[in-house]
Amino acid sequence: MAEREELNVLRWISQEYFDLNGSHYDTWKGLPTSLEFSQLVRIGRPVLIKGTPIPEMTSKWTDEYLVQRSGDNQLSIAVTPNGRADAVTPGPNDNLYFVEPYTEKLTMETFLSKLSSSGVDAKESRGVYYLQSQNGNLYSSEPSQASEFPVLRSDIPDDLPFCSEALGSPPEAVNLWIGDEGSITSIHSDPYENIYTVIRGQKIFTLFPPTDGWCMKEHTYPHAQYTRSSVTNQLVITPSSSDVPQIRWSSIIDPDDEAEMHPDAHPIHITVSAGESLYLPSGWWHYVRQSGLTIAVNYWYDMESRGMPWVWLNLLRGIKEPLAANGVQNSESQCDSEEALLDNYSAE
Amino acid sequence: MAEREELNVLRWISQEYFDLNGSHYDTWKGLPTSLEFSQLVRIGRPVLIKGTPIPEMTSKWTDEYLVQRSGDNQLSIAVTPNGRADAVTPGPNDNLYFVEPYTEKLTMETFLSKLSSSGVDAKESRGVYYLQSQNGNLYSSEPSQASEFPVLRSDIPDDLPFCSEALGSPPEAVNLWIGDEGSITSIHSDPYENIYTVIRGQKIFTLFPPTDGWCMKEHTYPHAQYTRSSVTNQLVITPSSSDVPQIRWSSIIDPDDEAEMHPDAHPIHITVSAGESLYLPSGWWHYVRQSGLTIAVNYWYDMESRGMPWVWLNLLRGIKEPLAANGVQNSESQCDSEEALLDNYSAE
Repeated sequence: MAEREELNVLRWISQEYFDLNGSHYDTWKGLPTSLEFSQLVRIGRPVLIKGTPIPEMTSKWTDEYLVQRSGDNQLSIAVTPNGRADAVTPGPNDNLYFVEPYTEKLTMETFLSKLSSSGVDAKESRGVYYLQSQNGNLYSSEPSQASEFPVLRSDIPDDLPFCSEALGSPPEAVNLWIGDEGSITSIHSDPYENIYTVIRGQKIFTLFPPTDGWCMKEHTYPHAQYTRSSVTNQLVITPSSSDVPQIRWSSIIDPDDEAEMHPDAHPIHITVSAGESLYLPSGWWHYVRQSGLTIAVNYWYDMESRGMPWVWLNLLRGIKEPLAANGVQNSESQCDSEEALLDNYSAE
Repeated sequence: MAEREELNVLRWISQEYFDLNGSHYDTWKGLPTSLEFSQLVRIGRPVLIKGTPIPEMTSKWTDEYLVQRSGDNQLSIAVTPNGRADAVTPGPNDNLYFVEPYTEKLTMETFLSKLSSSGVDAKESRGVYYLQSQNGNLYSSEPSQASEFPVLRSDIPDDLPFCSEALGSPPEAVNLWIGDEGSITSIHSDPYENIYTVIRGQKIFTLFPPTDGWCMKEHTYPHAQYTRSSVTNQLVITPSSSDVPQIRWSSIIDPDDEAEMHPDAHPIHITVSAGESLYLPSGWWHYVRQSGLTIAVNYWYDMESRGMPWVWLNLLRGIKEPLAANGVQNSESQCDSEEALLDNYSAE
């Protein structure tokens, strides 16, 4: 009962936010100034920017250039049988796991040749390849994190001044993404202000505001990883040892499927083409596909830690430790409460 | 039951916000730039600024200067028997009303002489005088609103560029406040970003974050106004006609009184002296006293209407229309629900 009423609060927030903001997003003709970006972050709505901080790369980064510049460097490439890295997937005994991809080390030339061999049979046997290491593969705020792209990174600024000046700190990570329509990023949200700029192809975003968190059917899943069988060479889901923490993740496979998504959720569809950028505010849920061979770079900046943001995002995801009658937090009951909240919803 | 659980959500938000932010407030040595102010608004915490946009006024605005410049202009002065304008007060039949002050037209010279006649007897018979018209008495975004201070206003800028540039619009109102320790502003919150700069004396603020809204015991009160009896010359509370909308206001008289304030509320005390300014973020609850003859100017800027702010502030004040089971808002039950929520709390 308690969770049901909490859910009613979340539903109210979600509807009220939509009534005030609709599905509107701003489109800007060029990059904002630092003051303008600070205002955009305060508003916290996605913005499609018809510009990029690296306009020359849209013509410079041909296959030939990338191959020539990368040479024999071994790049970490994510491989999955179905194009869904970091997603909830049925594993052994049909149990659901949060499954991370298998990582293969390939040269740029080999990787790009796998992306261009588009026959379904080829992909089914070898897997879907996606350069998506997400760990600051171009630049990282961790000094120990070496870039796998020592040559390519010289083409990409390590910082976007309009963001760093607005947010008061350099990016936490700068990531390179190369993939095609075979790869899909499952729906999730990040505690980062995100600038996503597309160099080639198109990124197709389905976005939901943080206030739709109650629709995301988040559950906690055991961790697993794809490994390649030494016998069959097939990718198989291998559960991690029990001391790997469980992962809280949305159980929704395709948020664009009306049969799967809650009818009261409020999607926004934005396609970002080469030479364009997306400001994706912290806490926004996103599901990302590609159209053709797509190359993008994103900048992650830490979200504001002072003030309200963390409280709101935790509330909106239902990550809320109930208060005991005396006002003291009771952390032991957190998981039960979360599950009850989500199960309440799922039962609808 | 529903409201009890909603209240538990509000309690959780309040505690979580405090755990993350404590009672900290920043102190700045001087005025922020527009970019810095935009960041401060995003954080949404009060800031004491050891500076003012009008430093020369702290020495220029002597009694003599004010009297000489204002001449015979008739100023609107609020008069109450107890120094509490715009406050919940017992009226006829001991019913509680939201009572606005009596307004007297006085010259600056007469007004200042009443402030300086500090004998209790004198005040009890004549009332407590406070220049606090709050309607943009210096500058207003309403073109029809004429200033009562055509001469003094030339000393005061009609805009603070660091605020207007950060917020993207000029101030909604600029107000002059002149009073003394006899006047108290009852606790309330405004949907404005507020820059409060002190020219003489001291403003003593007791602040609570928006997340403490559930502690404020807001109720809805009939409207009344002080009038001066033509027979006795005493100030008497006169209920307004029933078509004047009721006012939602905190029933707390003194939030610094531990017996009256909820023990889980999180006050912050900030004294702002002559030559200093306070950034008071939108939605923050404030109770304001003065030390000696105090002159201040404040700038009100509209709070951001896009994104989350209005949703959060309404949620935190318990102004929430419950959703019916089908997700459609049921506005008819709003008042009942509010009252139930507050009564639930009050019963604790």
